Amino acid sequence: MYRIGIVGDGYTAAELLRLMVGHERFEAVYISSTENIGRPISELYPELYGRINLICEATDIHTIKQRCDAVFLALPHGLSVPMVRELVAAGIPCVDLGADFRLRDARLYEQYYGLRHEAPEMLPQAVYGIPELHREEIKKAPFVANPGCFPTAAIVPLTPLLQRGLIEPGGIIIDAKSGVSGAGRGLRTSSLFCEVHEGTHPYGVGTHRHGPEIAQELSRAAGTGVDMVFTPHLVPMNRGILSTIYCRIKPGVDPVQIRQVMVEAYAEEYFFQVLPQGIMPHTKWVYGSNELHLNAYADQNGHAILFCAIDNLCRGASGQAIQNMNLMLGLDETMGLNGTGVHP
Amino acid sequence: MYRIGIVGDGYTAAELLRLMVGHERFEAVYISSTENIGRPISELYPELYGRINLICEATDIHTIKQRCDAVFLALPHGLSVPMVRELVAAGIPCVDLGADFRLRDARLYEQYYGLRHEAPEMLPQAVYGIPELHREEIKKAPFVANPGCFPTAAIVPLTPLLQRGLIEPGGIIIDAKSGVSGAGRGLRTSSLFCEVHEGTHPYGVGTHRHGPEIAQELSRAAGTGVDMVFTPHLVPMNRGILSTIYCRIKPGVDPVQIRQVMVEAYAEEYFFQVLPQGIMPHTKWVYGSNELHLNAYADQNGHAILFCAIDNLCRGASGQAIQNMNLMLGLDETMGLNGTGVHP
Amino acid sequence: MYRIGIVGDGYTAAELLRLMVGHERFEAVYISSTENIGRPISELYPELYGRINLICEATDIHTIKQRCDAVFLALPHGLSVPMVRELVAAGIPCVDLGADFRLRDARLYEQYYGLRHEAPEMLPQAVYGIPELHREEIKKAPFVANPGCFPTAAIVPLTPLLQRGLIEPGGIIIDAKSGVSGAGRGLRTSSLFCEVHEGTHPYGVGTHRHGPEIAQELSRAAGTGVDMVFTPHLVPMNRGILSTIYCRIKPGVDPVQIRQVMVEAYAEEYFFQVLPQGIMPHTKWVYGSNELHLNAYADQNGHAILFCAIDNLCRGASGQAIQNMNLMLGLDETMGLNGTGVHP
Amino acid sequence: MYRIGIVGDGYTAAELLRLMVGHERFEAVYISSTENIGRPISELYPELYGRINLICEATDIHTIKQRCDAVFLALPHGLSVPMVRELVAAGIPCVDLGADFRLRDARLYEQYYGLRHEAPEMLPQAVYGIPELHREEIKKAPFVANPGCFPTAAIVPLTPLLQRGLIEPGGIIIDAKSGVSGAGRGLRTSSLFCEVHEGTHPYGVGTHRHGPEIAQELSRAAGTGVDMVFTPHLVPMNRGILSTIYCRIKPGVDPVQIRQVMVEAYAEEYFFQVLPQGIMPHTKWVYGSNELHLNAYADQNGHAILFCAIDNLCRGASGQAIQNMNLMLGLDETMGLNGTGVHP
Repeated sequence: MYRIGIVGDGYTAAELLRLMVGHERFEAVYISSTENIGRPISELYPELYGRINLICEATDIHTIKQRCDAVFLALPHGLSVPMVRELVAAGIPCVDLGADFRLRDARLYEQYYGLRHEAPEMLPQAVYGIPELHREEIKKAPFVANPGCFPTAAIVPLTPLLQRGLIEPGGIIIDAKSGVSGAGRGLRTSSLFCEVHEGTHPYGVGTHRHGPEIAQELSRAAGTGVDMVFTPHLVPMNRGILSTIYCRIKPGVDPVQIRQVMVEAYAEEYFFQVLPQGIMPHTKWVYGSNELHLNAYADQNGHAILFCAIDNLCRGASGQAIQNMNLMLGLDETMGLNGTGVHP
Repeated sequence: MYRIGIVGDGYTAAELLRLMVGHERFEAVYISSTENIGRPISELYPELYGRINLICEATDIHTIKQRCDAVFLALPHGLSVPMVRELVAAGIPCVDLGADFRLRDARLYEQYYGLRHEAPEMLPQAVYGIPELHREEIKKAPFVANPGCFPTAAIVPLTPLLQRGLIEPGGIIIDAKSGVSGAGRGLRTSSLFCEVHEGTHPYGVGTHRHGPEIAQELSRAAGTGVDMVFTPHLVPMNRGILSTIYCRIKPGVDPVQIRQVMVEAYAEEYFFQVLPQGIMPHTKWVYGSNELHLNAYADQNGHAILFCAIDNLCRGASGQAIQNMNLMLGLDETMGLNGTGVHP
Repeated sequence: MYRIGIVGDGYTAAELLRLMVGHERFEAVYISSTENIGRPISELYPELYGRINLICEATDIHTIKQRCDAVFLALPHGLSVPMVRELVAAGIPCVDLGADFRLRDARLYEQYYGLRHEAPEMLPQAVYGIPELHREEIKKAPFVANPGCFPTAAIVPLTPLLQRGLIEPGGIIIDAKSGVSGAGRGLRTSSLFCEVHEGTHPYGVGTHRHGPEIAQELSRAAGTGVDMVFTPHLVPMNRGILSTIYCRIKPGVDPVQIRQVMVEAYAEEYFFQVLPQGIMPHTKWVYGSNELHLNAYADQNGHAILFCAIDNLCRGASGQAIQNMNLMLGLDETMGLNGTGVHP
Repeated sequence: MYRIGIVGDGYTAAELLRLMVGHERFEAVYISSTENIGRPISELYPELYGRINLICEATDIHTIKQRCDAVFLALPHGLSVPMVRELVAAGIPCVDLGADFRLRDARLYEQYYGLRHEAPEMLPQAVYGIPELHREEIKKAPFVANPGCFPTAAIVPLTPLLQRGLIEPGGIIIDAKSGVSGAGRGLRTSSLFCEVHEGTHPYGVGTHRHGPEIAQELSRAAGTGVDMVFTPHLVPMNRGILSTIYCRIKPGVDPVQIRQVMVEAYAEEYFFQVLPQGIMPHTKWVYGSNELHLNAYADQNGHAILFCAIDNLCRGASGQAIQNMNLMLGLDETMGLNGTGVHP
């Protein structure tokens, strides 16, 4: 068994623990917190009662290095940098679920996160952790920057089309709908049940931090700068992201190729399901799972619409993080992750 | 009191009755049904118990003409045509909440609704009932075609921008999110609670009947053919539509004009609220009301994003229908409609 | 127009404003806050945007006395006492939506609310504001203690049965299910969407403050001490309380009398609907309204089960408060309150 | 691998398949349907797409006997009897998720289900499948009657108290709150999203079929006839049952024994968690799992309140069915069932 440490006690930490209950090679041995030191984690998340008996400890890198074989960091931005530096130096594999190593450009990080990056020299080492796109790099990575939830659901459907040059790199519209758990467990009026339930609204219009992350990875796939608009919305559900992506088919490209290329690109991927023609993704179908459902519609006027559904906490965070760690440790990538969506 | 008849017993009929309870000049005197003849309407909709004592009758045009001063038709498509013909001939004002008289082009109707239109000669008389855009015509109309819910939430924000030529008439993307009541009370697996709750998904991609209706009205506003994509989504809430509209600002137009023109165009409208800068619409805030909230975001790269929130059953159907009828009867347009959103 | 003041800016204050928009004799002229002084109330509750233009002020009794003809207090417990004292002295009618004057026994108040009551001498003057039970007293009251939401939904169905001696005063079980708005707008982890949605749980078991309030009023109705158990539960909805009440029919009483007595007791009440035999209340049917739906089931083994549904914010708080104020001011009791449930 | 057959294609069948995806010894090889013959099961339940490739077949007992080592029956009442007879005769272990073999008394079955039981002589062989209560019998059973969801959540908390004689066998009140999936996937107006969402209501008052099933098992535990009232409610969530159970402590029993006896009775059970004192069950914490959370409150006046939360589809149906089958086949009881609740 690998002895696993988790730094942080938010929803993504709870999801890591939930998934580890069913992982045959991972055993959670350490969890740290700032506000809940000394409390059993099962008191914060009673679904773990009787299964996970850890007590939240203060974050201490020395303890972590002594007790853990591998580490997940589930921290607010800015706090991962010193941890990653120490863990990499100690040769302990780590996956950072936070945002500190996702953007390659330290100035962009500073602009969007309002913080000076404290280890810009480490940015080139970070591997962006979508396993189906960067599997070989992840296997050899000293640490992995786990992608944001919205970026995962935008980059996966667009990458094969941009790589093969089927769509224009300009004018891409990503309209995303997210469940509320993406906002975390922090106390905000806007996260109260009565402010969310029976309502849908956009947020972070033009300013969301996942925008530059998506642009970076799409530009990498396209081999050229991509012009895009990203608008997230909050819908009244616990989990799930649906991204609806509008793009322009390049002149001369047969619209049927759009879906066809998706099918081919991901035919061998265990977790990616291009649904049958005309069956569009539904976030319910991936609820609680590491699955990613996708499909495409293309018309004769040059419009293509791509759809992608994931569970934001699982495939959009903790599930993908475990998948990355499995790869880093040489395990079967799917270990602990084979559950399907919980429906109804 | 005007004696009001309602033909149909679905959700929009129930909403008409709810609104009439608070309308000082309308009294519901007749409701007809096909499946529930002989049952009290308060048995179908117990929220009306003790307030509305009507019994559902079989639809009979002679009875309607004898007993009613004005009529709302809340029928599946195809069924309104003969009713409207008779009512117009009898000089009885009517608002058709169905789709039969929304499209000007009978061939388009046939293509999208799969029915030959039985009274194409009446199409030119129909007034498209968004009161804030066509108020004077509505006052004089023999009957009004009440708009679809999605079209209302798309046409209102776009019209002033297209009319003034601030945005390109091509490449308009309308991404709409709707509550479930828009699907009606019919029995379909996809409308079951357990198939909807905790999920979001697109539907009618590329084929939704509200597409041509939106295109028709936008082209009218623009004075030229408009190229657009319309994608509706279902989100797990009873009521509400949020439309997120992506368009391109014309070269040379200052982005600040986008919101400014909206503000000016609708400054005098009682039901339309352009929210303060940066406060984006939320469907909760219009829940149960005839209000329409809107706002805009525009950047320096030529992208404009418009947002519009309505209650699909009220402003998107029955509230707007009553507003139209108020105008047709020479009453104050806001009569019976002054409630604000029910929040939380 | 009566110039109305509201002290407090929580959900019940917002609901008072929503209802006043449709009230022909009430005009909100003053609202006070502690945390939002200087902010437009429509910024806190954008559903009021364009309709209510008040700015939140600091609470100041002199201002209130100068500007207001009548006042609603929507404050946490303990804070109403000094306000009520001043308003009563000034002869300004007030309805206290808080808990300070509901319990007759100052020691019980101290035990359950952890505060010494600062005006126990005023307790006998307070009228407990369920209009259908205490109408004449309310008309003459210097101020009214507006009931708690759970007590309203428990006292109304039980009172006629206890008054007429049809059921035992012992062993009454009140199992209540409430929407989340009852918990207010305060920031608590347990009120977050993700902690509530897709879950049901009990709270305040054996200790909820509405327990002694219910016991007091039931004992008054029975003319003897009542033994009861009250257990509230939180269910994932914004609004609504359903109370399910189990009691024992007295020996010799015909079970059919149970429902019959309810029907007779409330036959003349505009807002109370005893539903047809076998149709049990549903909180949806009273959503957003001042209605109270009830019904009863009784078997041959001496068990009676009573059901009562209300909207906790409207009939359970602000709607009932306006009904009380209407009575105090000699207006028609139903003014501004005739809306039916918003369904779906 | 055991080759597993499933008869039926409703929600419990889908849940069986979901759980089997993670079961190391069960492979689904057969699924039958009446309405969906010839359709891939992943078309009905797209969460299974890419994982379960079965096609729905017509139900045929010969095929089942040839292809399957063990069978789950997920059928409407009345349809299981002939299947069970054949499977038992063929020595094929089967778990019946339906109601046909739960009631020992064929007359009671006839009274509540409106059908004459076609194999009353087999009733004594049926083992009532709550493994933690009847483990040894289940291991040896020719077939198992899987309990109803409400009964599971009522019998488990009450049994140790009744067995040890701590509470009165009379006047037990079981107030249960259920998610909507318990109503199945059939098309009924009352199961539509818009009829359920934002509402709570009782149903089957005094007549629900799980009433006699609960009474039978409680009487068995008490060793005497039990007098009880059972009232189910529908709350707007997909999954979950919370039962709140009111009972009377026998004179002379110390109230602290109530919870203590629960703790002792179930201390060794993997799936049963008596939560820490004062932490009451929440259906969210068991969502999607085979867990059963419980706790108790008891006061000095002789009132005890028991709480029990389960997932109605998993522990209340398919999870418990797999647990039963594991026992029948001599496997580790927890195989395939170790997932914790999915929260948030």
